[in-house]
Amino acid sequence: MPDSKSRITLVGAGTIGLSFAALHVAYLASPTQLTIVDTRPDLKEYVKSTLPKYLAPALHGLVSSIRLSDSLAEAVRDADLIQEQGPENLAFKAAVWKDVVKHAKPDALFWSSTSGITATSQAEVAGLDDAAAARLLVVHPYNPPHVMPLLEVVLGARTSSETVERTASFWRARQREPVVLKKECKGFVANRLAFALLREAVHLVNEGVVNVEEMDKIVETSMGPRWAVAGPFKSYHVGGGAGGLEGFFTNIGGTVQECWQDAGQVNVGEEWEKKISQQAREAYGTVDVEDRDRKTKAVLDAAKTA
Amino acid sequence: MPDSKSRITLVGAGTIGLSFAALHVAYLASPTQLTIVDTRPDLKEYVKSTLPKYLAPALHGLVSSIRLSDSLAEAVRDADLIQEQGPENLAFKAAVWKDVVKHAKPDALFWSSTSGITATSQAEVAGLDDAAAARLLVVHPYNPPHVMPLLEVVLGARTSSETVERTASFWRARQREPVVLKKECKGFVANRLAFALLREAVHLVNEGVVNVEEMDKIVETSMGPRWAVAGPFKSYHVGGGAGGLEGFFTNIGGTVQECWQDAGQVNVGEEWEKKISQQAREAYGTVDVEDRDRKTKAVLDAAKTA
Repeated sequence: MPDSKSRITLVGAGTIGLSFAALHVAYLASPTQLTIVDTRPDLKEYVKSTLPKYLAPALHGLVSSIRLSDSLAEAVRDADLIQEQGPENLAFKAAVWKDVVKHAKPDALFWSSTSGITATSQAEVAGLDDAAAARLLVVHPYNPPHVMPLLEVVLGARTSSETVERTASFWRARQREPVVLKKECKGFVANRLAFALLREAVHLVNEGVVNVEEMDKIVETSMGPRWAVAGPFKSYHVGGGAGGLEGFFTNIGGTVQECWQDAGQVNVGEEWEKKISQQAREAYGTVDVEDRDRKTKAVLDAAKTA
Repeated sequence: MPDSKSRITLVGAGTIGLSFAALHVAYLASPTQLTIVDTRPDLKEYVKSTLPKYLAPALHGLVSSIRLSDSLAEAVRDADLIQEQGPENLAFKAAVWKDVVKHAKPDALFWSSTSGITATSQAEVAGLDDAAAARLLVVHPYNPPHVMPLLEVVLGARTSSETVERTASFWRARQREPVVLKKECKGFVANRLAFALLREAVHLVNEGVVNVEEMDKIVETSMGPRWAVAGPFKSYHVGGGAGGLEGFFTNIGGTVQECWQDAGQVNVGEEWEKKISQQAREAYGTVDVEDRDRKTKAVLDAAKTA
């Protein structure tokens, strides 16, 4: 069972990679159990300057103990968990796993952070045998993973149930929320939901009902905080009173259906993109991400413990 | 300008009415400035037993000073603000305003809490003259209004800008977030957004990707807390890095478009309703709404002050 003694190797030191590093380092018995492999020539300076931004000050001292490597073979040799967050490209990911299986321990788990390339296709293109494919699955974070609890765990066709259990229990022990998807689907669940709302938001701004900033304000003062505490089904189950969700649809299903039928069908690449991007730039400029993340952590705490 | 000395009359003592009462009573110089009018015979007992649930214990003593009435004419005579939350029915609302204008002061504001019946149609069916129609608009809360800050302010065709300004400043002084919609549209904004996400959530549960409880968990641990702090446009503006929202669409617009094209087209009244309602009932039974509201308040505080 992966635990605080697990050795973890992160393949790829981009934003997601370092955010995962920040999450792991806080839970390991020693930071030397964490290895980051990346071929960028400035890896050492880059990790040293960037990673502390994601860490509580008390943990800054651990950064220099993390193992850094530019050799995948060397980096995965003693790892129990190998987590990749490379480019969103099937050929790249398949090449990583093809190389990883040659050097990794026979019971190491393989986690892909992809937001859409299925474990099934990764295993297939990498030519993994059944024993290796059984240990590969998708662990898709909601960015940034050192802040956001959700991890979408998506099995490939040959992923074993033991791999799923080891993966879920690893994350639960780290106060994360792994949710296992029962089917591989395009874009997984969280992004599909968010994009569905985004489409309607784009439509309404494009129609001139509200602007970008007003739209965000609406979400921040209504469904955002509500859904931080109770998701949409739970909320509408309450909304339906004694009748629950069925009561909700009996009472206002007509309005729901009218809104669905009237929903905007905007597409990426159309006129609105420039207008709306411009509005966002004017409204927000450069966002203070550290401030956002601090507030998000406080919100997560409040939802849990209030 | 409406202020702490305003006299407020609430027409309709349902859940929304009492939630608004709880909000108002905390900001008035005296609870006697608040009148609740409703024809239910047990109005006094009902308000006395229900309203304290929405109030901090320190305010419970104010409940008995609220004026109660079963006469609309009497209740609106000295009011500066008349807020209706009656049945969601155009004929009903029109009849209320038709009667209200006969008895109200000539500068009183008329607020409808409707979730979809436009001020334009209410003024028209009520046969309001221009002076009265200028003072009528929609102030649509996100339930329950004593907790959720959002108020969608939706003008009718004849609503005056002075009415909008008085309305918005009233709510801002009460730490609420009034957002003025520039156009009347079906379902207004917040519900349209939430319903768009709900449709995709229903589709994915119906497809068996996750169940109702897992779906809620996904939202509660990802976009819920994120959007409590930064709405969707602001979030994706950050997600696009230096390129902002345009960068976001350049980087992953292909995936966004694929998800939009693959989105579920479920309809109200189909098979899924029974299955999903059943799942919600089994998962949640009777939800502790006071607990939910306490957590929601804590989340709102955290998003603001962390």
